[in-house]
Formats: sequence, structure tokens, C-alpha cells
Amino acid sequence: MIRVVRRYEFSAAHVLARSDWSDARNRAVYGKCANPAGHGHNYRIELTLEGAVDAAAALDEIVAKRVLAELDGRFLNQEVAAFARVVPTAENIARHIWDTLADTLSPARLAGVRLVETSNNSVEYFGSEPSP
Amino acid sequence: MIRVVRRYEFSAAHVLARSDWSDARNRAVYGKCANPAGHGHNYRIELTLEGAVDAAAALDEIVAKRVLAELDGRFLNQEVAAFARVVPTAENIARHIWDTLADTLSPARLAGVRLVETSNNSVEYFGSEPSP
Amino acid sequence: MIRVVRRYEFSAAHVLARSDWSDARNRAVYGKCANPAGHGHNYRIELTLEGAVDAAAALDEIVAKRVLAELDGRFLNQEVAAFARVVPTAENIARHIWDTLADTLSPARLAGVRLVETSNNSVEYFGSEPSP
Amino acid sequence: MIRVVRRYEFSAAHVLARSDWSDARNRAVYGKCANPAGHGHNYRIELTLEGAVDAAAALDEIVAKRVLAELDGRFLNQEVAAFARVVPTAENIARHIWDTLADTLSPARLAGVRLVETSNNSVEYFGSEPSP
Amino acid sequence: MIRVVRRYEFSAAHVLARSDWSDARNRAVYGKCANPAGHGHNYRIELTLEGAVDAAAALDEIVAKRVLAELDGRFLNQEVAAFARVVPTAENIARHIWDTLADTLSPARLAGVRLVETSNNSVEYFGSEPSP
Amino acid sequence: MIRVVRRYEFSAAHVLARSDWSDARNRAVYGKCANPAGHGHNYRIELTLEGAVDAAAALDEIVAKRVLAELDGRFLNQEVAAFARVVPTAENIARHIWDTLADTLSPARLAGVRLVETSNNSVEYFGSEPSP
Repeated sequence: MIRVVRRYEFSAAHVLARSDWSDARNRAVYGKCANPAGHGHNYRIELTLEGAVDAAAALDEIVAKRVLAELDGRFLNQEVAAFARVVPTAENIARHIWDTLADTLSPARLAGVRLVETSNNSVEYFGSEPSP
Repeated sequence: MIRVVRRYEFSAAHVLARSDWSDARNRAVYGKCANPAGHGHNYRIELTLEGAVDAAAALDEIVAKRVLAELDGRFLNQEVAAFARVVPTAENIARHIWDTLADTLSPARLAGVRLVETSNNSVEYFGSEPSP
Repeated sequence: MIRVVRRYEFSAAHVLARSDWSDARNRAVYGKCANPAGHGHNYRIELTLEGAVDAAAALDEIVAKRVLAELDGRFLNQEVAAFARVVPTAENIARHIWDTLADTLSPARLAGVRLVETSNNSVEYFGSEPSP
Repeated sequence: MIRVVRRYEFSAAHVLARSDWSDARNRAVYGKCANPAGHGHNYRIELTLEGAVDAAAALDEIVAKRVLAELDGRFLNQEVAAFARVVPTAENIARHIWDTLADTLSPARLAGVRLVETSNNSVEYFGSEPSP
Repeated sequence: MIRVVRRYEFSAAHVLARSDWSDARNRAVYGKCANPAGHGHNYRIELTLEGAVDAAAALDEIVAKRVLAELDGRFLNQEVAAFARVVPTAENIARHIWDTLADTLSPARLAGVRLVETSNNSVEYFGSEPSP
Repeated sequence: MIRVVRRYEFSAAHVLARSDWSDARNRAVYGKCANPAGHGHNYRIELTLEGAVDAAAALDEIVAKRVLAELDGRFLNQEVAAFARVVPTAENIARHIWDTLADTLSPARLAGVRLVETSNNSVEYFGSEPSP
């Protein structure tokens, strides 16, 4: 079994705060990331693919058009529809990238999305359990 | 399914030698790491967590108190009780970190401990098989 | 001659745009970084010091109080006075860090501020030429 | 369960082109890597092992003799028999390393071969499915 | 004083051997890099610039057109005119990049070219001494 | 002007404490690094050379014999004569490496020794001022 991992980068701003929580609770959970003015990161995406991954150039083009064009250089909470109501945590950004790409890579299959937010924090998303 | 990976660092000294082995055998298995005076490393810990990992700050505090306070700046064989009789190989340090943290992270679940000892050597520990 | 280099990190949002330029000119010079909503980066600071640098802990405390407390987790254009009128480019952030720290490190001497903005872009600032 | 990961490096040249495809098709699939004169990479190998991995020095010697001596400093298509007819993609190099090492590490068990070809492209190979 | 450092990457093959030396002497000086079939590297370029560096996008375009288009994906000895008679060592590649770019960046000034060939080997070129 | 930078690594233990200072003063200056039992690091050496650096293999051999054989796998305070009375800080280790190598590299000239002790701390040593 073989897997291919390809890496991409984007830079974005975000605020970690739920609108149905008080400032105090947001600060308690998200720390200084709850600052309402926003802050930002260089995000690194690592996509793991299984199956027929012949043309890396084609994959890079899909990612550039569907993911990087939407997220790179953006204030996620304000400018990306998926995060209008969903807090753009690393977890939720990884899930969004999965949802954006999962159906577009056939015959290859997306096996995982890793999102590295800082040198100390990253997440891995493997899709939802298949329904029986 | 989502996993969160958080990274920590500590610096420690150790000797790789079993007291029930001869010097020659220790040198044959552990090479220059068997030097009885000791040597050291910058260790990098990567904790993989599953489940509800809301407050990274709380996790960082647990790791600082339970793991880093015990291991950082220490000569492991001489100063850490867990390594009084157990050789502090990367494998055994990873297992010790697992044992220290596994029951403290609820409702999150510890899914793996990666310990990077040098740029060329690391280990991953996933706990013991659950009994049926 | 000896120099000590110490590294720090912070995460912040910014907009690269001059208020006296048109949107078109800002886009031409700063590319997608001119997006008025903002985006962000993980910034890495590398301070180079000369002279008596005995207590790293004391240095770290100065940097934490004067630099990281001001910049980490912030939207630089909106929340940091130094960037109310000055565009927070990597160059200007490095100069601001220099100006903040240069007189506080005696008897050590600040010899350089390196600011790494992305994996492909960094700047080095060495202070202004001494007057004769 | 414990796994050990050890890292090695080699530098090699290759051409990505199938002899039964036209130049145009090779260019379409492999991009500039299809250049018939060849180009090259620094490859990083990460071997994941399970089971009794006592003597790292012994493992390093096996890898040096069987893998690095064959691949390091070579033009893979021209000088390595395994790639006389097989295109030396990252996938195929990883599989070749697996095939070379899998039966030589007992009582340890090879659990994976990761091959990092560039900062943006890597592959992971886990062997073929066991026959029932 | 401020400097900007921008990073680029390319992959290429080369042979380190002087045509006026015997094979034995080439092997003695260049080791396995003298293999006549060739091998390769991922090269990282770091350009240091002084002066007015406003538009990074313009700089990136110059480097892409003049440097990466010539070197990326190539067998340097065979396909790049500058290395028809000059051995493409890291030193000589760095000097070639300097010579290619030095006069094209005005009003910015090229202050240095760093070329990283492997994780253990890099060179820095600062131009020739100005004649008096 | 061209410079070559070559990188090496070693692992060692040390204690940062002056025998003529009280424990309290050592703790105040060196923090947890003053722990008398010792701790350790993976050290990275970067040697910068000017002049005729033809045979990297010859350089590597000198460094292996004179530097790595003395420092790698050692408890510096106890096992390396140079640190019997001198505190093995990063500064002093860099100076020791300079003193060990400076006269051995002719016709190349040692231009700098960089020693990276942790991801956040490194030093650069450039030799003493030449006497007039």
C-alpha cells in the first residue's frame, strides 16, 4: 500500500471565539487567540492520498483553485463563508479542507488532512466514519 | 475523526546501559551511548490526542507539571525514579510519558506519544493493547 | 568575538497597505497581502547579542514583557501604536523590535534583529548608522 | 506498542518517463521531471520498525550496505538495476527500499518506508497486503 | 540598515569532476560526487538584498525567469551553458546565480547568495571585491 | 568572496555552574541548567570556511577526529580536559572548537563557529582580534 503526501502553505488571520459564549469563557478556552481584533498564522497543509496519484501537477492545480485561492491571505472569520458561523480552529479548518477536496480527487482517495498551525500545534483529520 | 498533536521539548542527560550486562555487551548494543559518565539530548515530545481537546492551555499546564517538571534539565538515570532500574532509552521514556499522562487527559484520549531523540532517531508509543 | 542568538515566536495579523496609496497601487506592490480585511503569520524573531549575556532567563523576560506581550495574538495595524501609521511589513516590525529593545539590554549590545515572516521571506535589521 | 523511526539520506539523479509513452504524455504526467537528461534530489528515508530493535548500529549498517551503497550518488535509471525498466518515482523508490530491507531486519519488523523527495512531496509505503 | 532574504528551491543533477583531472584525482577530491553518470540535489537559494525591495512579487518573477527556468529540473553539466566547462560545485552555482542576478535588481542591491546543497553543506557568495 | 558552511552534530551532557559561585548564584544565572547532576543537548556545529576548501571529505575527517571524537557522547565537565575548570556553556564550547580547529585547516581559513544548543539558543564565535 502506498500513500502520497503533498504539502501546501497559506497565511491567514482568524479569531477563536464562539458568538454564543461570553468573552470570559472564550478567553478561558482559547486564551489570547480569542482576541476579537484577530491574529494570524502561516498554515501548512499536508494532504495524504491513496490510489492512483499520477499527476502531481493536476493535484496542485486543484488545491490552488479550491483551497489556497479561498484561504490564502484572508481573514477567515470575515471572508470565508464556511467560517461565518463556525469557529476557524485548526480542527475546523482541516475539516473544511477535507470537505472541499474529498470528492474532487478521484481516482485518488483523500486519506488525511494534516494542518500545522504553529510549531507546537497541529491537527489531523481523517473524514467521518462511513455510514454502514 | 480528528486528532490534535501538540509538541513540547526538554533537555536531559542519560546513560544507556543495563546493570545486569557487562560493559562490553552494553557497548555492543548501545554504542557510545553506553558511556557511564552520561551524555544528553534535546528531546521533542509530540502528543497525539483524540476527542474533546478544547483548551490547549489546560493541556500544556498538565504536561508542564507532570512531564517537563520531572524530566527537563535532569540526569534521567540518577534523578527520575522511573529510570532507577529501567534504562532510559527513547522507547522507555516514551512509555513513561504515556503512563504519566494517559489517565489525566479525560475527556480527551491520549492516542500516541512520539519522542524525537536526535534528528535520526525517534520512537512512537501507542499504549498497550486493551484487554478484551 | 562571540555572539549569542536567541529565538522567539509570535502570531499576529496585519494588512500591507499605505493609506496614501490607491488600492490598485497597494495590490501592485504588496500583492494579496494588501487585502484590507487582513491575514497573518507565525513570526520568528532571532535576536543577536554581543557582550556580556550571562543570564538568558533575564533576557527572555525582557523580550516577553516588551515585545511578545505587545505583538503576540494581535492585529498589528489596529492594536499596536507603532503601526497606526507605519505599514507593518517585516522590515518595519524588525525595526520596531530593535527600537524597543536596543536600550534595554546593557551591558549586552543588540547586534541584529532577524524576523522570519514565512518560510520564503525574512529580514535582518542592524540599527541605524551611528552618527559621527 | 512501540515503533522506532530511523532517518537516512541519499542524493541521486533520476528521469521520470515511461519508455512506452510519448514525450508529450510523459511531460503531461511528470512535468519538468520528464526531462530526459535528468535532474536530482536529496532523498530522506524514514524507516519505521516494530518489535525488537535493540541495536541501532546494526540497523544502520544494514541500511548503509544494502540501500545507501546502491542509491547514494547514483543516476537511478542508469545505474540501479531495479530501475532499468521501472520509473524511479518516489513511490517506486520507496517500494524498492521496502523490498530490499523487509526480510533482513528480523526479529524487528519493517512497518513502513517513508521517502521524502522534496519539501512538498513525500510517499509512505507499507508493503503489500498479506495473502490470506 | 535592513536586509531582505528570500528563499527559492530547485532540483538538479550534476557531476563533480574536472575534465583535466584523472578519475582517481576527481574521486579523491569530490568523493562519490565524481560519479560520471551523475547524481542530484534539492538546492535551496537564499538571496540577501539591500536597499529598496518594495515588490517581492517582482523579485520572485525575475528569479523565476532568470534562475529557476535555467536550473530547475536540469542536468547542470549537460544542459546549462555556464557549466559546460566549469564544474557545477555549490560554490560555482552560487557564483553563477550572483552573476545572473547582480545587475538586474536595481534599485535593490544583491548582498549575498547562499546555496544550500544538502543538510550538511552550503556556501555563501558575496561577489568579487570591487576594483579600486 | 566565497564561504563554505559545513554542519556536524554531537550529543553531550553538561552542568552550567561555576565552582567559585554559590548554588544560589549559579541557579540565578544559569537556571535549571545549573542542576549539579547534569542534563544534555544535541549540539549542531556549523563551521564557516574561507579560501581553498576543495576536499570536503578531508575536512570531515579532521572534524571527526579532533572534535566529534572528543565531545560526542561525553559528559563535558567530567570527561573533556578543556572543561575541567571552564564552564561548558555554548559560548565556551564554540571557542573550544575554534581553538581546536583553527590551525588545522590550512590553506582554508576558519571564519566562524556556530553552535546551536537548542532550537532557541545558539552562539557564533569568530576568533579573537588579531594582534597588530
